[in-house]
Amino acid sequence: MNVDRSLLQRALRLAEKGISEGHGPFGAVIALGGKIVGEASNSVVKSGDPTAHAEILAIREAASILRTHDLSSCVLYSSCEPCPMCLGAIYWSGIRKVVYAADRHDAEKSGFSDKLIYDELALDPGARKIEFVRLPDAGGEEVFRKWDEFENKVPY
Amino acid sequence: MNVDRSLLQRALRLAEKGISEGHGPFGAVIALGGKIVGEASNSVVKSGDPTAHAEILAIREAASILRTHDLSSCVLYSSCEPCPMCLGAIYWSGIRKVVYAADRHDAEKSGFSDKLIYDELALDPGARKIEFVRLPDAGGEEVFRKWDEFENKVPY
Repeated sequence: MNVDRSLLQRALRLAEKGISEGHGPFGAVIALGGKIVGEASNSVVKSGDPTAHAEILAIREAASILRTHDLSSCVLYSSCEPCPMCLGAIYWSGIRKVVYAADRHDAEKSGFSDKLIYDELALDPGARKIEFVRLPDAGGEEVFRKWDEFENKVPY
Repeated sequence: MNVDRSLLQRALRLAEKGISEGHGPFGAVIALGGKIVGEASNSVVKSGDPTAHAEILAIREAASILRTHDLSSCVLYSSCEPCPMCLGAIYWSGIRKVVYAADRHDAEKSGFSDKLIYDELALDPGARKIEFVRLPDAGGEEVFRKWDEFENKVPY
């Protein structure tokens, strides 16, 4: 079994372990050079934190262990295709490769909203199920001008 | 000034405060019945956590204070249109309304990847800049079957 298959199996076992502990059926592992630097099961219900998906927790652990928000040398293994929240986190962390087993359609069949959220994100804000109100005259652009002009900023 | 404008101004002031403290130029507030139950500035660089966007931190704080992952009675105010990661978190938390000032195009002009990530999410996994490898024979569907059959699960 190659490294990718082996680490994906570990993510799947974390998903199964999560089920028996009352978590959602999702597990994730992050590896650097084949060595695990972060791993987690989904823990939304038990922790009461809606962001506590397996991938988010694994990314936070890897960033803490590696002491950087830049995980561009890492690979993420997930029992299921990452949802939009987790995929966004993957992009922000710079993770270079994602290996996964099930997909958003499998998740949907078991009652999870991954596909719904993907579909919602592709819509204009005004067409979504959640009410989106933009106040363009509130001063949002001016904040970015202050950022542009701030000399000690650290871009990322 | 109505409640929405007032709370959005607070999010904008958190964004400005963040800039001067070395954070990215983003701030967010979550309110329940007009009362603030979570607020934050972006702290990715200082914390080394790539998920530490203002909205994510505010959602985690509100969930902790309200002791539930269900924030469906809450409104989120953000200095800028939430990125896909934060928007995903908003959907998972059930937040019912989002009020924001700047948008993804303003963020892009100041060097942030929000629009890029929105564009990437709309692509098939194989067409994205990050390498996505699905191993459909790895057993991902079987994990969902175990979830379906688990009698003590808590759907969310």
